[in-house]
Amino acid sequence: MSRYLSPRQSALVPYTPGEQPRERTYIKLNTNESPFPPSDKAIKVAAETAKKLNLYSDPTCKALTEAIADLYGVAPTQVICTNGSDEVLDFAFQAFCDDNTPAAFPDITYGFYPVFAARNHVPCETIPLKDDFTIDVMDYCGIGKTIFIANPNAPTGIALTVSEIERIVASNPDNVVVIDEAYVDFGAESCVSLIGKYDNLLVTQTFSKSRSMAGARLGFGIGNAQLIADLHTIRYSTNPYNVNSMTMAAGVGVLSDENYTRRNCQTVMDNRAYTAHELQKRGFEMTESYANFLFAKHPALDGGMLYEKLKEMGILVRHFNSPRICDYNRITVGARAEMDALIAAIDQIIKEELS
Amino acid sequence: MSRYLSPRQSALVPYTPGEQPRERTYIKLNTNESPFPPSDKAIKVAAETAKKLNLYSDPTCKALTEAIADLYGVAPTQVICTNGSDEVLDFAFQAFCDDNTPAAFPDITYGFYPVFAARNHVPCETIPLKDDFTIDVMDYCGIGKTIFIANPNAPTGIALTVSEIERIVASNPDNVVVIDEAYVDFGAESCVSLIGKYDNLLVTQTFSKSRSMAGARLGFGIGNAQLIADLHTIRYSTNPYNVNSMTMAAGVGVLSDENYTRRNCQTVMDNRAYTAHELQKRGFEMTESYANFLFAKHPALDGGMLYEKLKEMGILVRHFNSPRICDYNRITVGARAEMDALIAAIDQIIKEELS
Repeated sequence: MSRYLSPRQSALVPYTPGEQPRERTYIKLNTNESPFPPSDKAIKVAAETAKKLNLYSDPTCKALTEAIADLYGVAPTQVICTNGSDEVLDFAFQAFCDDNTPAAFPDITYGFYPVFAARNHVPCETIPLKDDFTIDVMDYCGIGKTIFIANPNAPTGIALTVSEIERIVASNPDNVVVIDEAYVDFGAESCVSLIGKYDNLLVTQTFSKSRSMAGARLGFGIGNAQLIADLHTIRYSTNPYNVNSMTMAAGVGVLSDENYTRRNCQTVMDNRAYTAHELQKRGFEMTESYANFLFAKHPALDGGMLYEKLKEMGILVRHFNSPRICDYNRITVGARAEMDALIAAIDQIIKEELS
Repeated sequence: MSRYLSPRQSALVPYTPGEQPRERTYIKLNTNESPFPPSDKAIKVAAETAKKLNLYSDPTCKALTEAIADLYGVAPTQVICTNGSDEVLDFAFQAFCDDNTPAAFPDITYGFYPVFAARNHVPCETIPLKDDFTIDVMDYCGIGKTIFIANPNAPTGIALTVSEIERIVASNPDNVVVIDEAYVDFGAESCVSLIGKYDNLLVTQTFSKSRSMAGARLGFGIGNAQLIADLHTIRYSTNPYNVNSMTMAAGVGVLSDENYTRRNCQTVMDNRAYTAHELQKRGFEMTESYANFLFAKHPALDGGMLYEKLKEMGILVRHFNSPRICDYNRITVGARAEMDALIAAIDQIIKEELS
C-alpha cells in the first residue's frame, strides 16, 4: 500500500479470482468455464471486427442490446450490456445501495458481493443459509434492503423457484432485488418473466458460462426501463465504451446460434448427472446443483487436502477456506473426458488415503 | 430516474461521449480515432484468440504488462492495464481522492474528470486555464490536492514540457499527480521518464489513438510500484478480468509492430500541419496542438453553426457548448483525403456565409 491510498480504501480486501495458471496445463475445473469453444458465428464476426478496431465501439451497444431483448422477450430499454456481469452488479451496488439502504445477501454466495459493498462504502448484512445450504425465503421477505441473490447460488448450485423469488420481490416493493442468474442456463428457471410485473426486479446474466465467452467479458442486466436507465447513468459516468467492439459482435454472433448454446448446456447437464453419480458411488455428498459445477465433500477426505492432491495430479478445482464450506470443493463440470480424468484421480487419492 | 436510485447518485450528470452515428456514413473527425486500421499483427492474434474465448482472460494481464514495461523501460510491477484509460483514471479517483484530498484539474480539459469526481463523491477544484488556454504551472505547485492534467490537454492540444510537469510533481510530494497522456504520441514529450524519481507520479496512456485500437478498449497506467499496487487493489475489487483476452492479445501484437505505430503518428502530424496551414489561410485561429486534433475558431463564423453545417455536409467534428470554448470546434486529424474533404466543405460554408 502506498502512503497515498485514501483511508476510505485502505481496509479493502479485494476479491480473489480462481487460479489462472500459465506455467502448466491443468485440467481446469476451477472457474466454471465452458469446455466448448465459442460458436463459430461468434469467432467469425469477432475476427472481422478486429479489422476495424480503430473506431470506437458503439456506446449504445445497439445491435447486441436488441438481440438480447429479442431473445428474452423484453424491450431494448430494459437491457444494459456490461464488461462481464461483475460490472452490472457493481453498478447496481452504486445505484441502489447507500447508508440508508444497505445490501443484503446470503453468508455463502458469490464472494464478490461483500467486496462490491466495501469498495462502494455500502453497509451490508449477510443472512446465513440454512444448515443444508438452502435459502429460507422468509429471511428476505419485507426486509427493506437491496437484496442480491445468486440463482442458482454459488458455490452450492442450489436454485430457488420463480415463485419463491416472486415472494421476495413482491414483499420488498420499495427495494431493488437483484437476481444474479450467471448459472441459470444449466437447468434452473429464469425470473426474467417477472420483469413486466415488478419494477424493483433486476436480473443479471453473463455470456461467460453457457455461451463459452468468459474471455470476451460480456454480461447484461434486464429490468424495468427506469432501473436500467439508472444503471446507464452509472455506466456513462464510469466507462461509456465499456464493451469492446469484438465482444459486442461476438455476442450478437452467439445469440444467432442458440441451438449450439442449448446443445452445450444439455451436454454439461448430462456430464453433471454422470459425475454426480460417480462421486456418490465413491461416498461423496453433494448439494443439488442446477449450475455447471458440483459442490462436493467426502466424509473421510479433508477438502483442502483433496484440492491439493488433485492439483498435484494436474486437476484444478476450487476450494474456499471459509468455516462453513471448507470441507467442500467446487468442481466445474467440463467435458466427459475431463470428468473421467477427475474420477480416476479421485479413485487414486481414495486408494492412497483410505486403504 | 427510478424511485430506487440512491440520492447520492441522483444528481449525477453523466459524461457525453462524441456522437457515434450508425444511420449514415460520416467523415468522422469528432472522436479522435485513428484513420488507420490496427496493425496486421494485432488483427491476427485477436482473431486467433477469439477461438479460445471459453477460457477467462488472464487477470494478471502478464504478457501485455510485460510488453508495455519493456517498451517504456519500467518494471511490470509499475504497470496496470485497464478497460480503456478511462478505467485507470476512475481507479485513481477512487484510490487517491477523498473528502480530505480533493481532486484538482483545469476548467477546460477532458470532460470526464468532473464526472469521475462526482460519481466517486470526491470534492474537486477546477483551476482556470489562462486566456490563451495554456496552464499556469504555478497554479498547481504545492496545492496539496490530487492533480489530474491531460498532457497534451484536450480539447486544446496544448502540451506542457517534462520540466514543467516535474515542477508540479516535485512541489506536491504528499499528493499524487496524474498525467493523462492519451495524446502524447503525436509530438509531445512523455513524462514516464520521471517515474523512477517520483513516487507520486502516475502516467496514464491509451491504445485508442496512436495504436488504432479505440474499439478494443485498452489503457494503462505507469507509476511507482506501490501506487500501481493500490490501483490493483481497486481493480481486484471492481473487475479482476477487466481486459478481455482478444484485446490483451491485440495489445501485445501492436506493441511488436512499433514501426507501424510511429509511421502512422508521423502521417497524422504531417496531416495536422497541412490542415492547420490550410485553415490559417482561410482565417481560422488555432491553439498549438500536439495531439491528433486541431482546436479551431473562425472570427466570422459561429462555432455551433460551423459544426451544424459540416454535419449536414457529412462531416462530424466536435463542438463543446461551454462558455469559454463555444466559438471553437475540435477537429480530429484524419487521413489526407478526409482533411481535403473538410477543407472543401469549409470553403463552401465560407462562400455561403461570408460572401
